Amino acid sequence: MSEIVQASQSRELIQKGKKAKAAASLLAKATTEQKNKALLMMAEQLIKEQAFILAENEKDIRAGKENGMTDALLDRLKLNDQRLRDMSEALIQLTKLKDPTGELLEEWEPPNELNISQIRVPLGVVGMIYEARPNVTVDASSLCLKTGNAVLLRGSSTAINSNIAIVKVIQHALELSKLPIESVQLLEDTSRKTASEMFKLNQYLDVLIPRGGAKLIQTVVQNSTVPVLETGAGNCHVYIDETADPKMAIDIAINAKTQRPSVCNACETILIHRKWASKHLQDLYTALREKEVRIHGDETVQKVGMDVIPATEADWGTEYLDLELALKVVGNNDEAIAHINRYGTKHSEAIISRTVENVEQFFNEIDAAAIYHNASTRFTDGFEFGFGAEIGISTQKLHARGPMGLTALTSTKYIIKGKGQVK
Amino acid sequence: MSEIVQASQSRELIQKGKKAKAAASLLAKATTEQKNKALLMMAEQLIKEQAFILAENEKDIRAGKENGMTDALLDRLKLNDQRLRDMSEALIQLTKLKDPTGELLEEWEPPNELNISQIRVPLGVVGMIYEARPNVTVDASSLCLKTGNAVLLRGSSTAINSNIAIVKVIQHALELSKLPIESVQLLEDTSRKTASEMFKLNQYLDVLIPRGGAKLIQTVVQNSTVPVLETGAGNCHVYIDETADPKMAIDIAINAKTQRPSVCNACETILIHRKWASKHLQDLYTALREKEVRIHGDETVQKVGMDVIPATEADWGTEYLDLELALKVVGNNDEAIAHINRYGTKHSEAIISRTVENVEQFFNEIDAAAIYHNASTRFTDGFEFGFGAEIGISTQKLHARGPMGLTALTSTKYIIKGKGQVK
Repeated sequence: MSEIVQASQSRELIQKGKKAKAAASLLAKATTEQKNKALLMMAEQLIKEQAFILAENEKDIRAGKENGMTDALLDRLKLNDQRLRDMSEALIQLTKLKDPTGELLEEWEPPNELNISQIRVPLGVVGMIYEARPNVTVDASSLCLKTGNAVLLRGSSTAINSNIAIVKVIQHALELSKLPIESVQLLEDTSRKTASEMFKLNQYLDVLIPRGGAKLIQTVVQNSTVPVLETGAGNCHVYIDETADPKMAIDIAINAKTQRPSVCNACETILIHRKWASKHLQDLYTALREKEVRIHGDETVQKVGMDVIPATEADWGTEYLDLELALKVVGNNDEAIAHINRYGTKHSEAIISRTVENVEQFFNEIDAAAIYHNASTRFTDGFEFGFGAEIGISTQKLHARGPMGLTALTSTKYIIKGKGQVK
Repeated sequence: MSEIVQASQSRELIQKGKKAKAAASLLAKATTEQKNKALLMMAEQLIKEQAFILAENEKDIRAGKENGMTDALLDRLKLNDQRLRDMSEALIQLTKLKDPTGELLEEWEPPNELNISQIRVPLGVVGMIYEARPNVTVDASSLCLKTGNAVLLRGSSTAINSNIAIVKVIQHALELSKLPIESVQLLEDTSRKTASEMFKLNQYLDVLIPRGGAKLIQTVVQNSTVPVLETGAGNCHVYIDETADPKMAIDIAINAKTQRPSVCNACETILIHRKWASKHLQDLYTALREKEVRIHGDETVQKVGMDVIPATEADWGTEYLDLELALKVVGNNDEAIAHINRYGTKHSEAIISRTVENVEQFFNEIDAAAIYHNASTRFTDGFEFGFGAEIGISTQKLHARGPMGLTALTSTKYIIKGKGQVK
């Protein structure tokens, strides 16, 4: 029995992989107009099929509650009228963005008199492995379509009903738009085995993009032989230095932690310079507790409130994704920077300061995708950056780093025109 | 005994990995002037220590001959006065190139009034795994140094004496230049185990670059969890279509195959349109045989010369790297394109043609880093492209594709300046 199931699992992956590759060849030839029409059709169908999608999503929400899913995770899973309208609107906005494929990036003639041009092309087939958020299904499908890539989606079992419903609606839109329906496919088998097989699907996948928590991402990075775009795990810090404006520091800390705790650019640890702490730690503590943030603090912090949980080594590396954070007092900037470079995930790091030298040191020595002075880490986002779209936030150093817009889903090729040149 | 040896192997890797990471932090702060001075010192020392380096290289050549190394491989391994002068000159030229690190790529203010800038930064620590060519030791070290990256080199056992000598000279130059000598390190243990351990050295390596044959590269790609820049394996094709100018086609085919057969952009298979073959195959055959090229041909080709070796399926996928090639007659452009996309390594592909439509189809449908019309595949090279330097030729789609200059060894970070903004 188990062997039969396993064989059928592999079959789904191989079959969908093959179909994705075939669809990618066709999609690469689709015009921008054709792709935009399909996006508009997707926008329309998402609204038209709203009742169907929400009913399927409700099944996932009910199962999540039964299984004791946290409020933060339920928030990620939940769809409603407004969120569907937002998704639909995002698809319409996407049609207004420039199609990066086909773009001539450079053209020149070296001394050998060859005419060399570099043009943008789709990557081919994108594999997405992601967790509970069903909006990623629409995001990933539409961004891949816009850039001429086929996509093979592997969402979480906790969102399976939502995802099947959404992909059904998307494929119907593709069919109505006369583009290959296999441009967007979902793996309905959400077992670990399917994910493991996807890690090695080099013959069909050009890139694998994980979106979710640190554990998911590390599993993909540690096991995948398909090139990975590492995204999203965010153990982000706010460092309040000796000279930070107290009100600004507290406002930013509260915003970075509480404005939407379930997302990757939310702050997970606040570091405070000893001298600032001696004057303002009590106020920061009060502000955090007013927002019902659970605090894991070091010894100094524990003295401020009875309800501070003693921080352990594990807390410095924890992405809580909830109203919970770690709070640590440091002796100087070097200590803060060393702490961040040791425990951070190279995502988003902020310094609150009124001293130029401290800020410069922070900018130069912190190794991260996005480094802030006097602003909330919550701004690390393709939309806030003005890209008009976001496929994820890269925390790796190759290909793309930080919020990734449409160009992150493209590659290039060189076209060289000669007149018979030999070397 | 074997356990002791294994333990010491791991120790070398871990120790050098740690030192590389520390060196990278210091190098990232070095000025362009400091780095250029060190490059000039390396250029000087390579010439000064020429006798030492050539004597050590001679040991490798002698061992290679004893072990029956092919002429093509011996050519890759061999150093002489001229090649050392070329390496030294390349280092001097490298100082004249722009240092890409620190470059401000973009700066803008989205509606949230944050000031966002994107700047180029070093990758960190680069791991290089490569085969016999000792010039890669100098290339990789100097390109990494120029871009502020530390490098951990793992060359072939067949070049171990040459590599130890060269790295000794380079480290002496670094010492004289007051830069960390651990900026360039060589693993002296060239066992497979060391390579395997390097594949998983994520804590110290930011990227792994294999340079060598298809087998080496596939081993790295299939086993590495460190992000890989896939380089170089080149099963390159020249396709001669129905309308190709006969003299130009033969000139380019001969050049692409014979000008330097041991390199990755040399041609390995020639595809010929049936109609062109019926008139000119004999001339192409004669020209190839005059250059002593061994020909693996299909049935049509076998009729042209008694010494044509019958081609097997394996020949279409073989990178000979020698005076040897596969020759196949095709019925039409689609067949040629399908053959190349199936057996090629996405490196360099050429069409010789006088028909615009055929060329356009070839440009659009071939999936490769560099696609030529009426020119030899031998031009796929950072120097020919005018980059002034080359770290390798990427055959992957992420990060960099085709000849990689200095910027391929960099990443970016976003620096965001706020005035207290919260979301």
